[in-house]
Amino acid sequence: MSRFFSEKYAELEPYVPGEQPKDQQYIKLNTNENAFPPHPSVAKAAAEAAASLHLYPDPECGELRKKLAETLGLKAEELMLTNGSDDMLNFAFMAFCDEHIQAVFPDITYGFYQVFAKLNQVPYREIPLKEDLTVDPAEYRNAAGTIFLANPNAPTGIALSREQIEEILQTNPYNVVVVDEAYVDFGADSCLKLVRKYDNLLVVRTFSKSRSLAGGRLGFGAANPEIIRDLETLRYSTNPYNIDRMTMAAGIACLEHDDYNRKNCETIMKTREAARRSLEKLGFEITDSRTNFLFARHPGIGGEKLYRKLKEKGILVRHFGAERIREYNRITIGTEEQMEALAETIGTILRDGGIQA
Amino acid sequence: MSRFFSEKYAELEPYVPGEQPKDQQYIKLNTNENAFPPHPSVAKAAAEAAASLHLYPDPECGELRKKLAETLGLKAEELMLTNGSDDMLNFAFMAFCDEHIQAVFPDITYGFYQVFAKLNQVPYREIPLKEDLTVDPAEYRNAAGTIFLANPNAPTGIALSREQIEEILQTNPYNVVVVDEAYVDFGADSCLKLVRKYDNLLVVRTFSKSRSLAGGRLGFGAANPEIIRDLETLRYSTNPYNIDRMTMAAGIACLEHDDYNRKNCETIMKTREAARRSLEKLGFEITDSRTNFLFARHPGIGGEKLYRKLKEKGILVRHFGAERIREYNRITIGTEEQMEALAETIGTILRDGGIQA
Repeated sequence: MSRFFSEKYAELEPYVPGEQPKDQQYIKLNTNENAFPPHPSVAKAAAEAAASLHLYPDPECGELRKKLAETLGLKAEELMLTNGSDDMLNFAFMAFCDEHIQAVFPDITYGFYQVFAKLNQVPYREIPLKEDLTVDPAEYRNAAGTIFLANPNAPTGIALSREQIEEILQTNPYNVVVVDEAYVDFGADSCLKLVRKYDNLLVVRTFSKSRSLAGGRLGFGAANPEIIRDLETLRYSTNPYNIDRMTMAAGIACLEHDDYNRKNCETIMKTREAARRSLEKLGFEITDSRTNFLFARHPGIGGEKLYRKLKEKGILVRHFGAERIREYNRITIGTEEQMEALAETIGTILRDGGIQA
Repeated sequence: MSRFFSEKYAELEPYVPGEQPKDQQYIKLNTNENAFPPHPSVAKAAAEAAASLHLYPDPECGELRKKLAETLGLKAEELMLTNGSDDMLNFAFMAFCDEHIQAVFPDITYGFYQVFAKLNQVPYREIPLKEDLTVDPAEYRNAAGTIFLANPNAPTGIALSREQIEEILQTNPYNVVVVDEAYVDFGADSCLKLVRKYDNLLVVRTFSKSRSLAGGRLGFGAANPEIIRDLETLRYSTNPYNIDRMTMAAGIACLEHDDYNRKNCETIMKTREAARRSLEKLGFEITDSRTNFLFARHPGIGGEKLYRKLKEKGILVRHFGAERIREYNRITIGTEEQMEALAETIGTILRDGGIQA
């Protein structure tokens, strides 16, 4: 810390992204990237856009927003595009939390919520997940703060139903409820259409997972136009050109081939269920994931130990040190081949350790 | 404003980017874009990167940072990459201003500084430019706050010398001095090398102007490694993946052909001086610009009127309503042909209005 750094950040601990070691080639199952590259038309669109990079991008993201609105059956003024969904989430913390309005989220969820709360110097309250790692909607009634719910939740993978989210929306008429649907396209209910019904709902989405654009940085929020206008006020006061020309073009091309994306999601869900069966055969306990990852623990080997053994053998998964989940690992669903290699490697680790399946 | 928006932003007025009207084709001389597209290898690099968009970008920007460090003769740990320079400037306001540390900048300068101060809820003090629109370094001695100086200044185009900046650095040992060099490659002195000499200096740069990447969103800060670490703490607490894969690849390709960029800058400076002569012949008073724009007023026609007449005739320039500069227009240096069209059109406007050169 330099002698100039504002004291208010003295305790700030940044988010730690999934590791990207460069010492060898790994099977990378640690950052929930899509197993498949984007549709080939995306690269073509990006290259075309790159020829005009001397010109600023459209700060209104007009064309992309229109295409996205068509795709989702919403209006352009119900949408705001951002540089990945983290950008959108940070704007939501800025807009709808302050020293008088706390943030409310589960004790086990996307680790960035806590960082955003600290960054924005807002109080926050963590509501513990139930023993089975599910969210209890009853605990979010009249939450007295802005609610942030990843649905499906991360890293558990477990989803609330649309009805459960509606219960939370109805019992919080004076609070914004932010539903972070990063993983929703892998088998959970989306609340996108509810933005017409509830003026306190902000749905946050990303192109990173189901649309294979993690490297392109594109996210968005959907809400009633008043909420969107607040968020746009902040975006125009921060970095109005937060989405570059190539990303906009990539996003449009991506939406033009959304059937390709949907098919990939279906493949990933099938692969997930096959991987689940293989791992259960090996003795793992696995949550009911509606995402492109599995959250799994084994009674015979500690979470961190398994993570380290896998890394030694060239497979990266993500391990979190938090107390309630430290026996688990979060395993991204890769290709069928990658998941078979994973199961085989884990089998070897268990056998070598003399651990019963 | 929705009923949920934090009260602290009730008075926030966002930055207004230069207009991008779509009603007709304009000669666009209003947003200081480079007159030339990026080197062709940039599009090729972007397309290659786009094929791997399902994977997250490197949050450390390792390869690009290394290439940039080589290009500038600095170390990687003295540099931080951002999503355009606005992103960097906002981090600087966050890191080095707070309720106890005010921001200090000229009354006439890049309009975003005031927006950043309000967004971050920090007090600010504006120091008036001298009558001739220059910055007086003596006024910045012991400024009791974090200093933000665009050098060359915008929209005046006028630059301080390196010695004048050093005077400000030396008389502010307890304040960070942020020197925003967005336009420095068009004929002014850079302070980049001074980051080794002064631990209170942060130089902010962008690829938008001299490197033809306005549409790609790439900026950076250069400072001693302690300052950079503070800023990285904030970046990792906000959006660690703020630069996408295509932009990183575009940035590297751009630096690999930096001679192309330098040649374009030289052409633009020559075109600027030719445009200056044409406009002076038409009776304009023009500041001593070291940028890719001219800041010009005419005794015979008001700034806003000229702006509107030019727009009617298909040429966009930028007019600012602030009292001290409302007789001026900021005119981006386009191609030689565009600047000839501008001079000709202005000649017609003046003749039609019966205005003497």
